[in-house]
Amino acid sequence: MQKPSIPKGTRDFGPVEMTRRTYIFDTIREVFRLHGFLPLETPAMENLSTLTGKYGEEGDRLLFRIQNSGEQADKPAEKGLRYDLTVPFARYVVQHQSEIVFPFRRYQIQPVWRADRPQKGRYREFYQCDVDVIGSRSLLNEAELVQMVASVFSRLGIRVTLKLNNRKLLAGIAEVIGHADRMTDITVAIDKLDKIGAQAVAAELIERGITPQAVERLQPILALSGTTAEKLAALRGILASSATGLAGIEEMESIFAYVHALGVELDVELDLSLARGLNYYTGAIFEVKAKDWEIGSICGGGRYDDLTGIFGMPDTSGVGISFGADRIYDVMLGLGLFPSEGSMSTRVMFVNFGGAEELFALRQLAVLRQAGIAAEIYPESAKIKKQMEYAGRRGIPFVAMAGSDEIAAGKITLKDMRTGEQRMVTTEEMATQACVIPNT
Amino acid sequence: MQKPSIPKGTRDFGPVEMTRRTYIFDTIREVFRLHGFLPLETPAMENLSTLTGKYGEEGDRLLFRIQNSGEQADKPAEKGLRYDLTVPFARYVVQHQSEIVFPFRRYQIQPVWRADRPQKGRYREFYQCDVDVIGSRSLLNEAELVQMVASVFSRLGIRVTLKLNNRKLLAGIAEVIGHADRMTDITVAIDKLDKIGAQAVAAELIERGITPQAVERLQPILALSGTTAEKLAALRGILASSATGLAGIEEMESIFAYVHALGVELDVELDLSLARGLNYYTGAIFEVKAKDWEIGSICGGGRYDDLTGIFGMPDTSGVGISFGADRIYDVMLGLGLFPSEGSMSTRVMFVNFGGAEELFALRQLAVLRQAGIAAEIYPESAKIKKQMEYAGRRGIPFVAMAGSDEIAAGKITLKDMRTGEQRMVTTEEMATQACVIPNT
Repeated sequence: MQKPSIPKGTRDFGPVEMTRRTYIFDTIREVFRLHGFLPLETPAMENLSTLTGKYGEEGDRLLFRIQNSGEQADKPAEKGLRYDLTVPFARYVVQHQSEIVFPFRRYQIQPVWRADRPQKGRYREFYQCDVDVIGSRSLLNEAELVQMVASVFSRLGIRVTLKLNNRKLLAGIAEVIGHADRMTDITVAIDKLDKIGAQAVAAELIERGITPQAVERLQPILALSGTTAEKLAALRGILASSATGLAGIEEMESIFAYVHALGVELDVELDLSLARGLNYYTGAIFEVKAKDWEIGSICGGGRYDDLTGIFGMPDTSGVGISFGADRIYDVMLGLGLFPSEGSMSTRVMFVNFGGAEELFALRQLAVLRQAGIAAEIYPESAKIKKQMEYAGRRGIPFVAMAGSDEIAAGKITLKDMRTGEQRMVTTEEMATQACVIPNT
Repeated sequence: MQKPSIPKGTRDFGPVEMTRRTYIFDTIREVFRLHGFLPLETPAMENLSTLTGKYGEEGDRLLFRIQNSGEQADKPAEKGLRYDLTVPFARYVVQHQSEIVFPFRRYQIQPVWRADRPQKGRYREFYQCDVDVIGSRSLLNEAELVQMVASVFSRLGIRVTLKLNNRKLLAGIAEVIGHADRMTDITVAIDKLDKIGAQAVAAELIERGITPQAVERLQPILALSGTTAEKLAALRGILASSATGLAGIEEMESIFAYVHALGVELDVELDLSLARGLNYYTGAIFEVKAKDWEIGSICGGGRYDDLTGIFGMPDTSGVGISFGADRIYDVMLGLGLFPSEGSMSTRVMFVNFGGAEELFALRQLAVLRQAGIAAEIYPESAKIKKQMEYAGRRGIPFVAMAGSDEIAAGKITLKDMRTGEQRMVTTEEMATQACVIPNT
């Protein structure tokens, strides 16, 4: 019989990966909760009519379609798997608008599916962690998202830089150089600034039909330097003739003022080359990168003024960000930031000697678990070597042994598997201090 | 434009439901963790060859099939959505047998999909919570599962009865009444004992071709009464001629002895009418019912000796149970057992007065969150009435107000939304005691 396998582009998450992933998700979820965000889950399947036309032609092609069941099997598919969490969120808000209390602060942590060609770091099933406020135009929301980014990555131990830009600034730039209708081309080109340099960007713009004069007028903007405050001050001059551009400057100044007032401990900087692909952003745009690990953006998002318009509910502004769990995982693994396995799963294993010793151990287990310590007993009185090997391979940091001597003394021999040291302790000591290991 | 909707048989879980569901899942997960079980997640899609033929003809029909993408779209589907967590678990164990440390204690909490006709309480997407030990024949595993059942339901506040039976007892009974080959018919009939009574069961058995003499011989078994110990003692006589039956009795005696020694505070009883549909159980069978709410089984499972045999890995015994999250949810809702919403999500909302007051409030928020208290500020300085309405509709129990007087005094006016009482407190008091509400 052939060994079974799973579809390409999908993954099993075994215990070690799951324990680490759970650590990431729990950390993010706790920050969301502390900031008053509420959980939402939507079904894996959506009606195809909800999904198609929302992600462009490419997206439509990458939707996983589900065969109709029973007699409808030959008819065109009516359902598809969720492609992201944003469209289902918009659908939910429109469908439940009468029950929802606005401003609606929701988070959603669920897998999505894309029929992409599988490759390194790209999967057909992966989790998204989205957090949004919808129904409020206040820029305090943007600042709170920045604060949450700082809090999540500080808890995870990842040093990051948060880059901020604003679609209104980009629109203002397109306007003042005389190509208001070509904002997308211009932002795509600016986005490449880091990768291909100013000269190549200029060449590309001209190739795309932007006039040389306009490209010339773009130069001082591409060359802006200094602090964020200095850049914004310079932009105020450059964008003086664009109402949209000036609105963008004011938004950015407010957001930076809030972030400063909040005392957010995070490198936050204005980056005009930040464009992000998604067309629905209308205000601030965020992107977070790890300082000490090269991997691209690990978190990003922005303000959108008409997300729910696609489902017939206009004028509902929102802002949100999404944490990239897979990349955060890779960064943490690469930098050795995960707590040791032993501190996250079973802390103590009792050797099973059978008979009265087994019953004694079972009673100690109950005390440890009561104290919140994950503990287990090897399920049969196998050879001690075998039991110790199990504990070793599982990465269990402490092994407890209680034979007749220990039972008579009301104590337990506790072996620290990392140092090999053994000592006698009471159950009480085990539950309160002997098995404690510092989180890395 | 038509309001968007979701496919029939699927559900959105809004904030209130999600907060409650998360409470259930977190409780179950914490008990799993304390007992040394490790998390596993498998992909939503499995190869169809993994899924088909595992759930009977009916099951095959109820599998959701996924259309191939791209050029393969017209060819027969190759992938299907997970139908339960058991088959993917078996597939995982076989596929990863060389890396797994046995005995393998794993839990898995994920949704499954079935193309069932949607009806009240039956959905096309629902979560399963499975916990299994595989690679150990020790009956201590059964006892630990019983202990975990007790712990989960005690933490959730649900009073339950756990019924235990054993496939070997049922096989022994079939053997001694002379119909060893008809165990399934006999157990199906016994299973109906509670619903249709002994007489109708006898009639049904005769209709199914069981001889009247055999049905007669079954009577003392159906009529067994007394304590579990008394029943087992009586069965020892009745099943004296069946080696399998006697093995079943010994297993049950061991399990009950362990449960007794563990001091499990739970009503655990032998129930010979418990058969459960799944054919792969070979030893103990479990079923849990709520005492105070009529809804059928809310948890169940059993011992299987050949789960992985379907994938070519024989002789690997395991035992596991599954918690029914949807029914547990209904029981808790029906009995009013969920903690109050306010104790699970945002505890305090600051009224937003704008300007310096807003900044003052933002600093207090940071302190509360640092102390683990979920807190938020209304994102704009809207009319107070509107802000209070938001807090009321959200079920936020405390509203904090800090105007210039409060700021001067370094205090905050805290309003208890349930009683209407207002008092002045320090941030410190808020973080440590003023916002504490007892669970339930």
